[in-house]
Amino acid sequence: MAETAWARFEPKMKEICDLDRVLALLGWDEETCLPGPGRAARGRQAATVEAIRHQRLLAPELEEAMAELEASPELTPPQRAMARLMRRRKRLASRIPEPLVKALAEARSPALGAWQEAKRSRQVGPFLPHLEKVLSLVRERGRALAEAGQDPYDALIDEFDPGTTQALLTPVFSRLVAALVPMLDRLASRPEPKAVFHQRFAVDRQIELGQTIAAELGFDLERGRQDRSAHPFCESIGLDDVRFTTRFDEDELTESLYGTIHEVGHGMYEQGFDRAFEGTELAKAPSMGLHESQSRLWENLIGRSRPFWARYLPLAQKLFPEALAGVSAEQAYQAVNVVRRGLIRVDADEVSYNLHIVLRFELERALIAGDLEVRDLPAVWNQKMKEMLGVVPAHDGEGCLQDIHWAGGAFGYFPSYTLGNLYASQLMAAYEREHPAVWSDVEAGRHAPLREWLRAKVHARGQSASAEQIVRDATGSGLDAAPFLAHLERKFA
Amino acid sequence: MAETAWARFEPKMKEICDLDRVLALLGWDEETCLPGPGRAARGRQAATVEAIRHQRLLAPELEEAMAELEASPELTPPQRAMARLMRRRKRLASRIPEPLVKALAEARSPALGAWQEAKRSRQVGPFLPHLEKVLSLVRERGRALAEAGQDPYDALIDEFDPGTTQALLTPVFSRLVAALVPMLDRLASRPEPKAVFHQRFAVDRQIELGQTIAAELGFDLERGRQDRSAHPFCESIGLDDVRFTTRFDEDELTESLYGTIHEVGHGMYEQGFDRAFEGTELAKAPSMGLHESQSRLWENLIGRSRPFWARYLPLAQKLFPEALAGVSAEQAYQAVNVVRRGLIRVDADEVSYNLHIVLRFELERALIAGDLEVRDLPAVWNQKMKEMLGVVPAHDGEGCLQDIHWAGGAFGYFPSYTLGNLYASQLMAAYEREHPAVWSDVEAGRHAPLREWLRAKVHARGQSASAEQIVRDATGSGLDAAPFLAHLERKFA
Repeated sequence: MAETAWARFEPKMKEICDLDRVLALLGWDEETCLPGPGRAARGRQAATVEAIRHQRLLAPELEEAMAELEASPELTPPQRAMARLMRRRKRLASRIPEPLVKALAEARSPALGAWQEAKRSRQVGPFLPHLEKVLSLVRERGRALAEAGQDPYDALIDEFDPGTTQALLTPVFSRLVAALVPMLDRLASRPEPKAVFHQRFAVDRQIELGQTIAAELGFDLERGRQDRSAHPFCESIGLDDVRFTTRFDEDELTESLYGTIHEVGHGMYEQGFDRAFEGTELAKAPSMGLHESQSRLWENLIGRSRPFWARYLPLAQKLFPEALAGVSAEQAYQAVNVVRRGLIRVDADEVSYNLHIVLRFELERALIAGDLEVRDLPAVWNQKMKEMLGVVPAHDGEGCLQDIHWAGGAFGYFPSYTLGNLYASQLMAAYEREHPAVWSDVEAGRHAPLREWLRAKVHARGQSASAEQIVRDATGSGLDAAPFLAHLERKFA
Repeated sequence: MAETAWARFEPKMKEICDLDRVLALLGWDEETCLPGPGRAARGRQAATVEAIRHQRLLAPELEEAMAELEASPELTPPQRAMARLMRRRKRLASRIPEPLVKALAEARSPALGAWQEAKRSRQVGPFLPHLEKVLSLVRERGRALAEAGQDPYDALIDEFDPGTTQALLTPVFSRLVAALVPMLDRLASRPEPKAVFHQRFAVDRQIELGQTIAAELGFDLERGRQDRSAHPFCESIGLDDVRFTTRFDEDELTESLYGTIHEVGHGMYEQGFDRAFEGTELAKAPSMGLHESQSRLWENLIGRSRPFWARYLPLAQKLFPEALAGVSAEQAYQAVNVVRRGLIRVDADEVSYNLHIVLRFELERALIAGDLEVRDLPAVWNQKMKEMLGVVPAHDGEGCLQDIHWAGGAFGYFPSYTLGNLYASQLMAAYEREHPAVWSDVEAGRHAPLREWLRAKVHARGQSASAEQIVRDATGSGLDAAPFLAHLERKFA
């Protein structure tokens, strides 16, 4: 009986998961390979696949198989988790009318094209109508997703981080702002160390450095690839096909280096799911916040540590003997840990980073609520930057155009980055308690113990449990800002 | 009434055409980007999309809309053509059971992987079971596609070249063999000219040469791209997203050069469809033979002409000053027109090329009919090479493993190349009659007149008419080997 229901359900779930992967490839290709004029057709192609996936999720045959499945007492725990996850997807999908799915998919491609062009030309004007269009569809989406009485923005956040709400985030964010603004005041006024990474660095050597470190951290380049794109990202097309992208700057080394480590953190998560989950709903992270915890852990907690530079400065010096001659590991460490009032989120230090997130959280909350008009966004962005970080962009390219998210319709994603920072520190603190040798391991390039711990505690579980549960099982407590703030205090005291 | 039927039909047709493009991207990516271990999952993903497309083609809703459409007297000629073409697709699709569609898609990916590895290692053994599997499914496919009394191999050929049969090809091929074998005997015994293109040629410069010529011929690189792959091909993901691939050899220039021109000929066809047809069934070539006519016309009739080398040798010399120092245009022309008993189809001269095709035609006919076992293929290939071309491969990598087609399940495709050669000469002869200045145009790099003539006569029409009709409209007659043989006689007299 259970077997029959499972046999009816499984291929339907796998078909939907295959369509997820096809859409991931369409998206990856759009940012890495697609010729510009091809965007319109790509938008239609993605819309077609999204619409089919939507129909499949709502097909009566799937509903029947699921109803039978849910009534069965004989499911294994993974089977039960898959049923639960598919039920959630069906519930979310059933709330969004198909024309809206299609309209949003079709609006996204031209908006992404316009964003790229706007960012390049630093002219926000021609992008704003696209953003207006995307926003109005996302608002509609939020309203459609919301339960009775639920705020549409909460419904959008919930898609990325199930269970997370503005009510949950607001006190955490307040605590962060209260701690970080004075910390930023204090640290940003220190004299800056020597900018040892502002030199000429040939791109092919940057690639070599990044790939060598990626491989040593444990990203399997045979089961994935690295490409270039305007905005770095990681996309999994399958357990053995995990792709990340990097942006290179010939005049600066750390953008590509930390971009690579960040995306490799995501990539190792995607490569680390239990192989038995491949092609199913379980081979995914349970939340974007938990996903970001993996990128931020490797990028910041490992990559911006002293032992990391003790290990990798010699390699960097071998690749860039002129640019890095005479630089010490301590100088490198200091150079990648400058706390400053910066304009760009992805370049931000660990202290100011979350302030960039709080800014975006407040802006997108206002945009979704209708309290902020798109045409006012550039000015309000600049004003908030001044209030929160004490700096004002010289142009919109380093202001409200810096991130891809809104052009792609991803409102509600930004909080995930801060959740990631907090989870990362929680996981790292727990690991350090269990493995006091961690820093000598890092200095020796022995990353397998930490990686395998993360694989067992986080990656392999996929979304068989919630992010909150996974963090609790690994660390003993749920979301908690204390380990993150303790880390900063210790590091920047 | 007609409008209602059309409004019901059009989105269904466009959805199917979008899925065609998505599958084209999955295939392109598999040959250019996909990490090897990702092939199995890619096979499943493609199989899922193919199965959905198959279901869509056979959906009762499409059948109802079409029945209504076909009964309507008020359709425009393009609408009527789309209805006719979709009816043909539905007829073919209805004959193939869905499990077979899925099985073939799933068998193809590992077979392509095994083929790549076999070709690399020159070991045919591990590939043969994959070919066996693909062949048995293709046979099943041929039997399923065949009308009552139709030969399965004819049914497979018809998919690529509608209306073409073994009965039609056999006398044409016989005429070619009768003319070409003695011509090859005569020409292959001539002393070979200096091998001016066997030198060291840096790949980045080869890319520059190829792209410069591609652009001058008229391929729009802004609406397409060039990549590298083991087996060159051209794939259109949309009118503004046409991608071709090239194989580079650092020790030889013409493989990449003529590979580029060949694929650019395909690419200009795909970029040349009437924009009004985009996203519909009309934005396709009516046959693979006609498609190959465009690649072969540019590759051979233009690219291997004296005026071509008068134009492009100076550019090649600028890019490769050392390798090509002192080479004359006449030497270059002679070097790319050596007629020899070669082993490799894609490297073959204009005289021997069609003999490679006849060999494959006879082998695949025997494989499909069951008169030849896969395990005997390597030996029989070698024996036939000896009979037809007078040479024997030293290993299977330059024998039966040289082409990708069979691993991908494309049995019945090879005749298209010969049809393409014949059509190309017919079109060129017609153009030359109308435009006697053609060769001074080529020498001046003025390719627009020929390209625009082809666009108007061939490309823009898409598959609004049959290949036979398009060639007849452009040249005054249907398939005819005479212009091709006359061209060879004139060139190699």
